[in-house]
Amino acid sequence: MRPRTAELICAGSELLSFKSNSYVPLFAARLRGLGFRLSGEHTAPDDRDAIAALAAGALKSSDLVIICGGLGPTFDDLTRQGAAKALGRRRTVSAAARRKLQDRYGSAGPLPPNLSNQCVIVEGAELVDNDNGSAFGEVLTAGGKMLVLLPGPENEWVPMFDKKLEERIRGFFRTRAGTMRTERLKLAGLWEPQAEKALEPVMRRFPGTDCTILAGPYTAEFSFTVREKTPDEAAARLRSMRTACRKALGACIYGSGEETLAGALGALLLRKRRTLALAESCTGGAAADAITEIPGSSEYFLGGITAYSNEAKLKLLGVPSRIIETHGAVSGECAAAMAEGAERAFGSDYAAAVTGIAGPGGGTAEKPVGLVYFAVSGRGMRTRVFRRNFRHSRSYVKRCSVNFILDTLRKIIQ
Amino acid sequence: MRPRTAELICAGSELLSFKSNSYVPLFAARLRGLGFRLSGEHTAPDDRDAIAALAAGALKSSDLVIICGGLGPTFDDLTRQGAAKALGRRRTVSAAARRKLQDRYGSAGPLPPNLSNQCVIVEGAELVDNDNGSAFGEVLTAGGKMLVLLPGPENEWVPMFDKKLEERIRGFFRTRAGTMRTERLKLAGLWEPQAEKALEPVMRRFPGTDCTILAGPYTAEFSFTVREKTPDEAAARLRSMRTACRKALGACIYGSGEETLAGALGALLLRKRRTLALAESCTGGAAADAITEIPGSSEYFLGGITAYSNEAKLKLLGVPSRIIETHGAVSGECAAAMAEGAERAFGSDYAAAVTGIAGPGGGTAEKPVGLVYFAVSGRGMRTRVFRRNFRHSRSYVKRCSVNFILDTLRKIIQ
Repeated sequence: MRPRTAELICAGSELLSFKSNSYVPLFAARLRGLGFRLSGEHTAPDDRDAIAALAAGALKSSDLVIICGGLGPTFDDLTRQGAAKALGRRRTVSAAARRKLQDRYGSAGPLPPNLSNQCVIVEGAELVDNDNGSAFGEVLTAGGKMLVLLPGPENEWVPMFDKKLEERIRGFFRTRAGTMRTERLKLAGLWEPQAEKALEPVMRRFPGTDCTILAGPYTAEFSFTVREKTPDEAAARLRSMRTACRKALGACIYGSGEETLAGALGALLLRKRRTLALAESCTGGAAADAITEIPGSSEYFLGGITAYSNEAKLKLLGVPSRIIETHGAVSGECAAAMAEGAERAFGSDYAAAVTGIAGPGGGTAEKPVGLVYFAVSGRGMRTRVFRRNFRHSRSYVKRCSVNFILDTLRKIIQ
Repeated sequence: MRPRTAELICAGSELLSFKSNSYVPLFAARLRGLGFRLSGEHTAPDDRDAIAALAAGALKSSDLVIICGGLGPTFDDLTRQGAAKALGRRRTVSAAARRKLQDRYGSAGPLPPNLSNQCVIVEGAELVDNDNGSAFGEVLTAGGKMLVLLPGPENEWVPMFDKKLEERIRGFFRTRAGTMRTERLKLAGLWEPQAEKALEPVMRRFPGTDCTILAGPYTAEFSFTVREKTPDEAAARLRSMRTACRKALGACIYGSGEETLAGALGALLLRKRRTLALAESCTGGAAADAITEIPGSSEYFLGGITAYSNEAKLKLLGVPSRIIETHGAVSGECAAAMAEGAERAFGSDYAAAVTGIAGPGGGTAEKPVGLVYFAVSGRGMRTRVFRRNFRHSRSYVKRCSVNFILDTLRKIIQ
């Protein structure tokens, strides 16, 4: 089944200047639920002609076009004007809109001029009520296509979409729920090209599935969207795709959706009733920061020592000075001693350590920038040491190292 | 003076599904600095024809078109193909690209297939080197217009734009430096509305200046763009605007441009030859992480202890148990003892501590979620304690607290 397509136009000069647009995923998820694929997003300045041109273009290629923003009462809100131009219609005063605003703002006399503007709608528009603001939404249909105008503030358009618009879209396009489903698998301990190599046969086995691989710092994300006639068929296909991915990627899959590595590790520690401590050098506290992003992490995370100087490694983690003299602070031996030192200092069940050269300075031929050693120690286990070389910028070496140690802990503890 | 216009195309199906696009303001600011107005942004799926159609359309209406993303080595990276189609050009193997990748990844034999893909560029493209990844940028010119391809990851395209692309754009369009100039003042220790209130009279005194206030976690950024006929006039206007801002905001301005709070604090410690240690509870290592993002921070940062449990506060930081019994771990007394404990443990000149309730759980009527205590101690100074209430999400409370303690250290040490 080819899904219908939708395009989103976000109107507002601030979105082309200083303000990030966080709406696209919110619209995408809603549209997916209605059986639409979001095939494009455009950001327009507060300019009638720009909005009109984008709307006219989008209506040619897509079934549903939503313009979000630019419905306010001020001079720079020009979405209604742009929509009218795109459809070749006039704007007209809506008696229903006037009545509703008068009811709401409770005055018998004429509306103040800025509210009056809100009653001038595109000819033929169906109003969508707004419980949280003065701007009505508008639904316009022409030639089997639908153009929707929604106000910009999230607390206005989200309830309008969910409570009022969704049903109208379903009714107009006669779409059934459940025909399109997306899953996001979160992967760690590999690079994007490795994920691709492992997933290529899976993708070949499931033609017609939309697949995306997204790279992260020594992590990746694989998302796939299936389209089927019935919700049951979509769920079944999602299930077999998921099984195939698990076979191809094994332990590299740590979760799905919004799950994070720190969250997966935390859930594991909580379930096993085990505690964790850290000793960090080159990651400088970033691993502890990631772990403590998870609400309730104080249940299992006792703390960490960022030993950025050799003295701190000796004094606070009890690393023997002969290890630093013989092997250097960036060595497997030092990482092991740091992990064991953190375990002792915090009295935790497990401890992990990271020491490396984040750069840009400090590298040598033998120990280049990006070389990082890791260790995991724990009660009743032999301390394990790992070595990786992340050839990247300082910040990226830190992020890769954090993800590697969280993932390694997860794999050892589980 | 009418500025030239630019359009941005962000390529990546994930941007039309689950991932927010945070790049537009970053591009907008850079383009403004070069004398361009960002007149539109489009998000395209990983689809050659969609990218080609958007690029062709944008090249008709704008002087400069940038496509960001979709240059990776995997099957779903189709930006080069789309750009080639938009310009009606073929793609060709670049010997220079191959040589550079071979130098970087140090192998005499043939490149692995995924890296090989990175050498197939659009005919006539000038390469833009990428220090943090395998995807080259490409600069394509035709009929007085410029089409630029940049890789998607921020740690790749930002340095490529700033170090390499900016000059080529200036050169091609012969934009004169100085006719349009932007300054970004970085502010800390206040919220956006406070910055706005302080800056309003300044903005009124300088009409015709493009001003933007951007909110951050207990920080803000004020950027202003002046347009003058000559570089001298622009520089003079920038200077008087800057002076007016300094009068209005005083010590809240910690830097400009790409400077960070951690960078400003680091420069200060380096200049004064002083060392710093940290004791963190609710920030969980995030302050140490921020400090160690700065290259060379090991010169002045000795380390930190993340004491997430009371035991760690007692044992590793030497906080007297009666303080925790009498005042609790979230108290000014505990913060002071933690700072002094970190100073002793690391033997640093200064130490700072953070303890609070990041939430979402753990709050009480007396000590609500968001309440955070801070302390700064140092040789020869009385330990100082601060209290703030950041009513936000867990992660935002952490970010606000990190910025507050870095800013407070900066103000005390300077």
